[in-house]
Amino acid sequence: MTDKLKPLREQIDAIDAQILALLNQRAKVAQEVGHVKAETNAPVFRPEREAQVLRGVADRNPGPMVAGDVQTIFREIMSACRALEKRVTVAYLGPVGTFSEQAVYQQFGSAVEGLPCASIDEVFRATEAGTADFGVVPVENSSEGAINRTLDLMLQTTLLISGEVAIPVHHSLMSKTGGMDGVRVICAHSQALAQCQVWLNQNYPNLERRAVASNAEAARMAGEDPAMAAIASEIAGTQYKLGVVKPHIQDDPHNRTRFAVIGHLQTLPSGKDQTSIVLAVPNKAGAVYQLLAPLAKHNVSMTRFESRPARMGTWEYYFYVDVEGHVHEPAVAKAMAELKDQAAFFKVLGSYPLSLT
Amino acid sequence: MTDKLKPLREQIDAIDAQILALLNQRAKVAQEVGHVKAETNAPVFRPEREAQVLRGVADRNPGPMVAGDVQTIFREIMSACRALEKRVTVAYLGPVGTFSEQAVYQQFGSAVEGLPCASIDEVFRATEAGTADFGVVPVENSSEGAINRTLDLMLQTTLLISGEVAIPVHHSLMSKTGGMDGVRVICAHSQALAQCQVWLNQNYPNLERRAVASNAEAARMAGEDPAMAAIASEIAGTQYKLGVVKPHIQDDPHNRTRFAVIGHLQTLPSGKDQTSIVLAVPNKAGAVYQLLAPLAKHNVSMTRFESRPARMGTWEYYFYVDVEGHVHEPAVAKAMAELKDQAAFFKVLGSYPLSLT
Repeated sequence: MTDKLKPLREQIDAIDAQILALLNQRAKVAQEVGHVKAETNAPVFRPEREAQVLRGVADRNPGPMVAGDVQTIFREIMSACRALEKRVTVAYLGPVGTFSEQAVYQQFGSAVEGLPCASIDEVFRATEAGTADFGVVPVENSSEGAINRTLDLMLQTTLLISGEVAIPVHHSLMSKTGGMDGVRVICAHSQALAQCQVWLNQNYPNLERRAVASNAEAARMAGEDPAMAAIASEIAGTQYKLGVVKPHIQDDPHNRTRFAVIGHLQTLPSGKDQTSIVLAVPNKAGAVYQLLAPLAKHNVSMTRFESRPARMGTWEYYFYVDVEGHVHEPAVAKAMAELKDQAAFFKVLGSYPLSLT
Repeated sequence: MTDKLKPLREQIDAIDAQILALLNQRAKVAQEVGHVKAETNAPVFRPEREAQVLRGVADRNPGPMVAGDVQTIFREIMSACRALEKRVTVAYLGPVGTFSEQAVYQQFGSAVEGLPCASIDEVFRATEAGTADFGVVPVENSSEGAINRTLDLMLQTTLLISGEVAIPVHHSLMSKTGGMDGVRVICAHSQALAQCQVWLNQNYPNLERRAVASNAEAARMAGEDPAMAAIASEIAGTQYKLGVVKPHIQDDPHNRTRFAVIGHLQTLPSGKDQTSIVLAVPNKAGAVYQLLAPLAKHNVSMTRFESRPARMGTWEYYFYVDVEGHVHEPAVAKAMAELKDQAAFFKVLGSYPLSLT
């Protein structure tokens, strides 16, 4: 074998030497970029530029390397080049750890300084105060729906959304024994129960389903009571020493949790962007349809719509709306201007590159 | 600014195009390597080869890119090429999550399939059964010392150690309020208290220090009782909503947790290797010095020595010893042969590349 492998490995070594030289060439040019930026006090991290590079290499990737893996490599390359200018500090929500931290690395690569915070409020505070350059906060959790605290804080903050990250989330059925003998109740957050409904109907139609405060709470309960099984992430399961009965039982295999990247930055157009806004109308929820007419008029697609009862102030509901495009694009700008005129409350949360995944 | 940045970005784009082409050339050669390996049923993951590549690029790195960041990029490049042959599955200890998972990525890059397990036993079982290609288990935890369960299982398993990963660990002082007003007791695992002794003597000489079962337990207690502060990782702190009084208070700033990569693989020499063995002598611990004479005789350096009371069988103690070098090196081979002759019990746990960090 060694005889056949040796020339191939020599080829690889030669390629690696070229890659190494190019990486350092790139780093040198990136340093020059840093100097130019420093003269004008321009930001080190440009999400729209990084999104363009990542899309570009995936589009032009001839294979056989998988496009997603090419993007992972280039994310690290940009992260390493950026760190030569300044190591970006990113605040994130510590608890449940893994997903939020994963989101940080998915957006910024490894060469960042993570700043774990105890609450979503603290992530906003640390970023507003400049302790962190950016914050990463959950926006929508597939097991618990919209993260209300994030939406509330978005209303008040001066920070803008500069990016979006989606992390795949899997639900697994777990119990103390790893089996279903003696199990009478399946516990989970109501959203997780809903997301596994088809599978549960097929496999355990006769077991009681009980909605609890969170999937982590369900895992804790199952760890104490062998008559209970839990639907939760395997990370939560291992924390309470549960055995996996069946992994990945959610009906939608592409279940994701969404995070927003927040900061002081006004992101420029990347070519494939999204704009998040929040607005309110006085009293009548029926006024919403009419309110959104400017979007249709200017041919701006709405990709997400969420209403939320106001906890304070004059309005009954706030509406969180995502639309395709960047506020610098004429159609979007016109639609926004008209929305602003009509709505009782209107705020642009940010325009930013569409998440890659 | 745009005028100055544009030509620089064009330079970067041109470099990226070359890197992209080279990555795919490398992937093609890696596929050929895969075919050669498949003919002879040789393993996809060769830790000694990957260690050599990573050391090589760091040694030859001209800068300005930081050597550690270059290694991160090449780890991802090798991970992506390896995934074209086969996506390696790696079992790891799930609870407390982050560190073990981090160790998996640090060894294998991102293009792997992680398999979180509820216990160290399960990691061994999954790897022995072939459900996972490799396992990653903690060997020595700076807050709790040697991981006894791992050492016990190493005695019996047919698996070999094929690599070692070290992850930096920081201890922080935390409390419910983030301050020390009203705090009367500082809790932590005894090892963590010991590791922060100098700092504690300087800063809080008069507060009671209480050793508890684990740092996570200390964090939990501090979350319930404002009279207690905890020393723990910030990840544990965020889990129990503690505020950080002072980060990174351990006396040794390079505090690390060590993990072993276990698998069926016999790793070949990489040039900078380490060999782990375990041995026992009948009864007298005094016989140990004499037992280790072959190491000195053949000029083999011992880098780690740990004794552990036997929980079963004939011997009072087992001795876990790490030495420099690979069993394929003549001096190491001779020393091992002599040790084996003299010891009542002798087992090579594996020869593997020295950890990069």
